[in-house]
Amino acid sequence: MNDLSIHVLDKLVADLGDIPVVTDPKVVRRRSRDFFWYSPVLNEQLDGKSADLIVAPRDENDVIATVATCARHRVPVTVRAGGTGNYGQAVPLEGGVLFDVTALTGIEWIKPGILRVEAGAKLNAIDAELQGHGSELRMHPSTKRTATIGGFVAGGSGGIGSVTYGGLREPGNILAARVVTVEEEPRIIELRGDAAQKINRTYGTTGIITALEMPLAPAWKWIDLVVVFDEFLEAASFGYDAALADGIIKKVLAPITWPLPSYFGALRPYCPEGKSILIAMIAEPSLESFKALLGARGTITLETPTDDSPGQVPLYEYTWNHTTLQVLKTDRSVTYLQCLYPHDRLMEKIVEMRKLFPDEVLQHLEFIRFNGRVTCSGLPVVRYRGVDRLNEIIRLHEECEVYIANPHVYTVEDGSRYKRVDADQLGFKHEVDPHGLLNPGKMRSFVTARP
Amino acid sequence: MNDLSIHVLDKLVADLGDIPVVTDPKVVRRRSRDFFWYSPVLNEQLDGKSADLIVAPRDENDVIATVATCARHRVPVTVRAGGTGNYGQAVPLEGGVLFDVTALTGIEWIKPGILRVEAGAKLNAIDAELQGHGSELRMHPSTKRTATIGGFVAGGSGGIGSVTYGGLREPGNILAARVVTVEEEPRIIELRGDAAQKINRTYGTTGIITALEMPLAPAWKWIDLVVVFDEFLEAASFGYDAALADGIIKKVLAPITWPLPSYFGALRPYCPEGKSILIAMIAEPSLESFKALLGARGTITLETPTDDSPGQVPLYEYTWNHTTLQVLKTDRSVTYLQCLYPHDRLMEKIVEMRKLFPDEVLQHLEFIRFNGRVTCSGLPVVRYRGVDRLNEIIRLHEECEVYIANPHVYTVEDGSRYKRVDADQLGFKHEVDPHGLLNPGKMRSFVTARP
Repeated sequence: MNDLSIHVLDKLVADLGDIPVVTDPKVVRRRSRDFFWYSPVLNEQLDGKSADLIVAPRDENDVIATVATCARHRVPVTVRAGGTGNYGQAVPLEGGVLFDVTALTGIEWIKPGILRVEAGAKLNAIDAELQGHGSELRMHPSTKRTATIGGFVAGGSGGIGSVTYGGLREPGNILAARVVTVEEEPRIIELRGDAAQKINRTYGTTGIITALEMPLAPAWKWIDLVVVFDEFLEAASFGYDAALADGIIKKVLAPITWPLPSYFGALRPYCPEGKSILIAMIAEPSLESFKALLGARGTITLETPTDDSPGQVPLYEYTWNHTTLQVLKTDRSVTYLQCLYPHDRLMEKIVEMRKLFPDEVLQHLEFIRFNGRVTCSGLPVVRYRGVDRLNEIIRLHEECEVYIANPHVYTVEDGSRYKRVDADQLGFKHEVDPHGLLNPGKMRSFVTARP
Repeated sequence: MNDLSIHVLDKLVADLGDIPVVTDPKVVRRRSRDFFWYSPVLNEQLDGKSADLIVAPRDENDVIATVATCARHRVPVTVRAGGTGNYGQAVPLEGGVLFDVTALTGIEWIKPGILRVEAGAKLNAIDAELQGHGSELRMHPSTKRTATIGGFVAGGSGGIGSVTYGGLREPGNILAARVVTVEEEPRIIELRGDAAQKINRTYGTTGIITALEMPLAPAWKWIDLVVVFDEFLEAASFGYDAALADGIIKKVLAPITWPLPSYFGALRPYCPEGKSILIAMIAEPSLESFKALLGARGTITLETPTDDSPGQVPLYEYTWNHTTLQVLKTDRSVTYLQCLYPHDRLMEKIVEMRKLFPDEVLQHLEFIRFNGRVTCSGLPVVRYRGVDRLNEIIRLHEECEVYIANPHVYTVEDGSRYKRVDADQLGFKHEVDPHGLLNPGKMRSFVTARP
């Protein structure tokens, strides 16, 4: 399957001593996957890719011992936590070790406005702990109930909360990161401020993140709302007004075109036939102002406190890439795109894209702040007609200045585009991963003479 | 002095019973003034204007009894609290009663994110009380240590905090107001949501505000910073970047051109000769990110926790219209303007205005959010060369699409301009003040058949 000999792997396992290892091929193969299958293109390319074994460090000392051993034996290391990504971030292209960091869950400290936490801590566990301090994470992906903070930073870009704070790439949204280098004698590097961006969205290719320092937001009592509109453009237009209303505290504003809500399972009773919806999370003290702004423009069909405690399905699991998932649950013939709309011609471009692909690209927008401006990230559901047509749709978007972060490629360089940060990630990789063992193949521009 | 006969005033006082009244002309004249003298134009027009007496209600029942009596006798009522306004808001043009509401200071309740408070409560007293709840007001004027919440809403527009939340006019920044009508049988009206905008910036002409419901912000530990730049445009440009950084929590970002800091008294040691400065208030957890964004672009000369406890002069008393006051303390030959820069050509217009009036209009900007966009309010210090030149400067600004809210006029209509809210304030005035007794002359478009 890979070019690592059984001999090398046996020596590796022996050298790891009492650090937990999983070698059962079925388990290793299952855990070597993430949610790349949202993309038929990635599904073809990545299906069957697998690590040779899983190593599960119990603490940072185990991390150091493992990577020293892997460096010595020149065995690839692909970090994996919740495995909720959509870009194959956690899929090992060249076998080796799948490095399961989900045991690193400790909260190192909480100060007013700042949290220091180990990378494998689950987002919902972090927020549960922060509640007692009146705080919460500024943003989280729609996979909050299973994803980890390290995976979010290494693979994500933003999500629920980005309508207020922008994405992880905005200054101040990642305060610091601790990384372990993959060398025979691993070093621990503390990255602060701008330097912390070196591990943002690099799919674990630029060092093993062991801890993160993240800024916090006040923990409002959030209200989940479904607002129904006759026309999608009315939902988008009201969403825009609400996004621009700085006096209204919000965490998500997602206009979703009909017929997407027809796939929404348990939410279906709140989504009348033929109507487009806006999904919103509004802080309770701002609810009256939100309703005043809405007036008679739309109808609220659901209003309930956000509840993502165990066993509950919060409304945000119908937003961001969960919107796509809700459709995929019953219709595997669709896929999706990730778009960035230009902030200065937002509504105009939304109309333009709608006209260009009336029944083929079904609009789902997420209001965000990007470089300090309100705009939309688009995660439309696309009726898939083959890779050529998909690439044509991407090209037509970009010709209209609606930029695409292509979720149908698995390298950092090809997929990120406008999500890239201004940091020398490639240079940093040379520093922390001289043998090119970290998630090889994902940072395409990295070339090393691996013996 | 006015056309109210001594006879009427005597009857009024008699009817007021035990409600506190001040008739000492020296006290009445002194308290009939506000800070309109920043404007040489208003100073000429309003100097000497005075009420006939002061009435100081102890509670809302006193308010109702007083206005009923005033309505019966057709005596004008001009509400006055801290008297910190700059537009002559609190100056009675037609004598009558100066209505001192500073005894109405009760906090009715505090809930998560919302405060209900009587109109005469001082802003610094409110914030001191809120501290224990981990909250604070979203915004306040630079006169926070003496101004009241009612005066801020009736006369102000925004201030420290508006870089994050926008002004009072943005949806969600005033939740509700309770007003008493000026009629023989006064009514109490609760204005909620959009309706609360009917008392926003109407100088007390649209009902007596007795209570306000205001949204709250988390009470961060704020850090006062002075950052020094070789060139003003560098201060403005960095301020813009910081204003756009949604991950950095801030309360004020004020670029101020040299030579204005040369007038800054106690702050002078932190303001090197010939250098322009940026005054900032940054939440402590965001301080490191703020400094990373600054890099080597400027030099921090002051960094200290915000302290506006009694006896302390907080840094924000060098921002907003306190910047002007700092200069006026030693140079009475200057005045100021209030500008709104267009958000989509901000830096370009700042450069343009700078070239147009190099030594005459000394730039002082305040980053704000306006309709959801980051832009600047300008409060430049103007070397005064007469009213004709002042009006020419205003005209030249507006020709360049830098809009002016003229602080050299005393009517709501002439002064507010872009600060106006979308509410039928005139219609509401007819409803709550049928005899036109509230601060007569200030709402110019109001005409009534006052017998």
